[in-house]
Order: sequence, then structure tokens, then C-alpha cells
Amino acid sequence: MFVGIERAVEILRSNDDFYILTHISPDGDTLGSAYGLCSILQSIGKRARVLCADEIPKKFSYMFDTVDNQEFEADTIIAVDVADAKLLGDNIKYVDDIVLCIDHHISNKDFAKNTFLDTKAAACAEIIYDISVFMKTPLSDKAAMCLYTGISTDTGCFKYSNTTPKTHMTAAKLLEKDFIASDINYKMFDLKKKSMLMLEREVIDTLAFYADGKLAIACVTTEMLKKAGCSENEDLGAVTSIPRQIEGVEVGVTIKQKGDNHYKISMRSSALVNASEICAFFGGGGHPRAAGCEFFDTVDNIKEKISTKIISVLLDKE
Amino acid sequence: MFVGIERAVEILRSNDDFYILTHISPDGDTLGSAYGLCSILQSIGKRARVLCADEIPKKFSYMFDTVDNQEFEADTIIAVDVADAKLLGDNIKYVDDIVLCIDHHISNKDFAKNTFLDTKAAACAEIIYDISVFMKTPLSDKAAMCLYTGISTDTGCFKYSNTTPKTHMTAAKLLEKDFIASDINYKMFDLKKKSMLMLEREVIDTLAFYADGKLAIACVTTEMLKKAGCSENEDLGAVTSIPRQIEGVEVGVTIKQKGDNHYKISMRSSALVNASEICAFFGGGGHPRAAGCEFFDTVDNIKEKISTKIISVLLDKE
Repeated sequence: MFVGIERAVEILRSNDDFYILTHISPDGDTLGSAYGLCSILQSIGKRARVLCADEIPKKFSYMFDTVDNQEFEADTIIAVDVADAKLLGDNIKYVDDIVLCIDHHISNKDFAKNTFLDTKAAACAEIIYDISVFMKTPLSDKAAMCLYTGISTDTGCFKYSNTTPKTHMTAAKLLEKDFIASDINYKMFDLKKKSMLMLEREVIDTLAFYADGKLAIACVTTEMLKKAGCSENEDLGAVTSIPRQIEGVEVGVTIKQKGDNHYKISMRSSALVNASEICAFFGGGGHPRAAGCEFFDTVDNIKEKISTKIISVLLDKE
Repeated sequence: MFVGIERAVEILRSNDDFYILTHISPDGDTLGSAYGLCSILQSIGKRARVLCADEIPKKFSYMFDTVDNQEFEADTIIAVDVADAKLLGDNIKYVDDIVLCIDHHISNKDFAKNTFLDTKAAACAEIIYDISVFMKTPLSDKAAMCLYTGISTDTGCFKYSNTTPKTHMTAAKLLEKDFIASDINYKMFDLKKKSMLMLEREVIDTLAFYADGKLAIACVTTEMLKKAGCSENEDLGAVTSIPRQIEGVEVGVTIKQKGDNHYKISMRSSALVNASEICAFFGGGGHPRAAGCEFFDTVDNIKEKISTKIISVLLDKE
């Protein structure tokens, strides 16, 4: 059931021992929201613990020390930034007992007993901040640092179109606390694994250009991952965005190997071209400016098929 | 003479025909401040023109259309984001007539008749916004877009340590206007020239690691610039920051060729090491975390000298 902030706060106030669940493949927002809320609850005398079914990436480990991590049995289960119960991973075992889900995804499945959803919020951490204001609980420096992490990471450091005036207002309030935001941003946005840099180098070598440079296609094969020292399940966001970052490119495509003759395609486009429609043509889908599809074929055939289709779409726009 | 906002506004109100000068090698802040102020002045019935002694890079050209660019003879000369008269380039010819300089650089030389300096402002555009509020002039969408560009570019999209709560408050106010901030940020921070991407690839190939990966040294030679298709005076900020972006690297060095056996060194460091002290040892200088020096020697000898010195500094810290 979707509820307002009053009911969400009532649940937080009237209970004492909380587990706060994050989604799997944890990012800055689910962790920042969870540790921020955990800190807020502990500051008003509640017991709270963050539970994540996946290992927490090392770069987020500084949040772990912002709260008291003692173990106990909870009587109240909350989920933050979780749009769908299946994103709980092994913590799906708690699903029938989740009394409150706090989230900002428009795709939220309302799987919890109560869901406080604000789809206008750029990050779930923005909603946790609203809750702390509504509850009139003082926000510690460490809690502010966690909430800032959530907002900064989910907006690409205020770069993406989900950033609103309210996002900046919230960041302004959080920055008044004592933590070094620029150190967090360096860690989140500038720092790279050596293996990822090596992979980027390899990916640049595969770039092929079509249609006077309006289309760029790059490849990432299993062998390239191995050569660069990356693991199979590495976050490839940085390399996937390379083709579309090049000046003049309207459609950027990255072909990622999943198995023998099995490839996933990431497509990013400017407003000129609807990537979602092109990917739908190949049985995939997504958003107008970021979509994907899948092929069981050779790289050369995939390049041929995709480039032919995209070039014809680009010609139609001229 | 340093003056307050009242005097700055009095100058703007009591005159009618303005030239607004930017600094050379124009960046987003000097241009955003100039076009933003120009727009504000035109909106209250004044004539105003932006003058920049250097060509304006193509990526900033969208600001040009935010104002009426008609030519006329000014009676009042203003400079924005200009810390030193020598940064005016050929517009130094106006130096004796500059009645007001609006700036945020702590190094401001107070070369104008009146200088309104706010060193707490992350960007000069933040000050122009303050002026518009003080003057109670309504801010157009286009003026807001220019001021946002200034703030965003001078803070690395709110990533750097100069970003304050007030920076975010100002961004919140500007985002209420009708322009697409994410398109600007894409252009400023994500878009890359193909030649720059090719240079990055070459630079990654030159990376050498020392001291268990705590020191990384990269090279950019004239030949590499040529091969990648970059011009001699290309902005190399993106490649200079590669070594220090690698996980585990405490000191990142880039050796840039300036001529035959003539090289400039950029050094970036974590808080562990004082880059300024190391560069001073070699006759250079700079800031504790970003410094530089110069060598007339071969690349191999320079690598040997620099790595020996830095390794000894790193050993002292263990």
C-alpha cells in the first residue's frame, strides 16, 4: 500500500528494533540511504542494522563505520531504494515481514506492507533527508555524509537530468555538516581500477565509425576482460559510455560478449534518434536515449546488422 | 579599490553602455559570468557587449545567442573573473578605463578602479547571481543558463572542494528556470574529441608504476599529440589527471614534451605527499596536491630522477 510521510514516520517512531534492507549490487544510494537512516534511528535511541545480501564494494566501506554495527534480532523490517522484492537477493526471506519500503523508482512494485514512494526524488537518500526533517531529528555529520553519497552517486554528481532544485537544496543542507564531500566525489567519480583503465584502452582500439562519425561501435570481449585483468561481473558503465562521449556521435553502441556467439548490446543516443525503437526492432527495449538488445551471432554480423539499421534511421532524419 | 556589493550595483545602475571583458583562454565561468551579466543589464534597458580577446571555444557558443550582440561604443568597462590585467590579452588596451572588476580569485590584483571580490564564491557566476538578487532584476532563462554554466564548470559539476552550501543554493535557484542543465553538463564534462580519446589511449600505454603502485608516471610526447591528431596547444587536463586517478596511486606524474629534450612535469598527489615540496626540489612549485617543474633532459633520465626522489619521500612516510 502506498502511504505518505506521516505513516512512514509513524512506523519509524512506534518501533524499536530495525533491520534496514538494501538492494543487491549495492550502489551509493541504497547504501547511503540505509546507513543514513540507520544512523538517524540510532540517534533517537532505536536499535538498527543494515543488511545487504551482496558484499559491499570496498569504495563504500567508509559508510560502515558511521553506525553501531552490533547484532540483534529485529522486530521491524524496512527496505530502502528497493523497487522490487527480487532485488533483495537472499534477503527475500524477510519479504513477508517488510513493514515499510522507502523508494524513488517509478517502477516500484509496492511489495511491502507500506510503501513511501517519491518518484520526484533524484535519490532515495533525498527522501531519507525529508524524513529526518519531518521527524525533527538532528542529523549527525556521519549521517549527512551517507545521505550526500546517495544523492551524489544517483545524480552523477548533480550532472544528470534527474537533478532538481530540491536535490541542490538538500545537498546545500547536508554540506553544512562536517564531512569532506570532495573526497567522497573523488572516490566515486575519479578513482579507477588499473584494470578498468587497461580495459578502456582496449575498448578504444575497437572503435569503428560509420555515417560520417554519427555512429560509433565498440566491443568488449571476454578475452579483453581477461587481458585487462577485469572480472566477468565488473561494472562496465565507464566503457559502455565511451562511444557516445565522442564529439559528433549521435548513437553510441557497445557490444559486450556474454558467451560463445552471445552478445549484449548497449545503445546510447542523442535526442535525434530513439534508441529504444531501434533496440525494439532487434527484440530488445529500454529508454529513448539508453536501450539494449541481445544477439546470438558473430561480432561482424552484429556490427553489420546494427550499423545498417542505424544508418537508415540517421538518413531518415536528414 | 576593493568595494562592496552596494558600490558595484551603483556602478551598474548609474551607467548605460557597457563592455564586459573576460579573461583570455576563456572558460565556462568567465563566459557564463559575462553573458549572464550582459543579459541582466540588457533586461533593464542598458546596452552591453561581451568582449573576449581570444576566440571562444565552440562548446561555449550557445551562450553567444543569449544576448543581443549589436555593436556600439561603450562608456563603462567592466571585467569579470579576471584576477590580473595581463589576463585581458589584447583587451589590456581598456585597462585604464575598467571601472569595475567582479571576481572570486584570492590572487586578484585589484587592477580596476573598483573591485568587488568574494573569495568564498566557488565561481564568479555565483557573485553575478548575488548581484541580480541585490538589484531585484528578474533573471531570464538564458541568463540562468549562463550563470549555471559558470558555476558548474568552475566546481567540476559540484565535485570539487570549492563547492559550498551557498553554491548548491544558487544552483537550486537557477535550475528553477527553463533550461536543460543536463545537456550543458554532458557537453562540458562527458563529450570528448576523438583525437583526445586517441591521445588518452596512447598515454595509458606509457604508464609506468613504481613503489608498489603508489607512484605512476605517464608521458605525452609531441609525436603522440601528432599521431592522435591533437594540436600543440590542446587542453591536456584530461590526460594529466590519468595517473593520479588510478586506485592505489598516491603520486601521479605526467611528463609533457615542450621541445627537444625539454619537458614539463605535472604532479598530483594525495594528502600523504606534498607535491609542491617535491617540485620545489627540482626548481618548480605549486600547491601541496598539484604542482609542476621543468627539465631539460631525456625522458628516461627524468623518470629516473623523479621516481628516485618520490620513492624516497614515500619510504619516509611508511
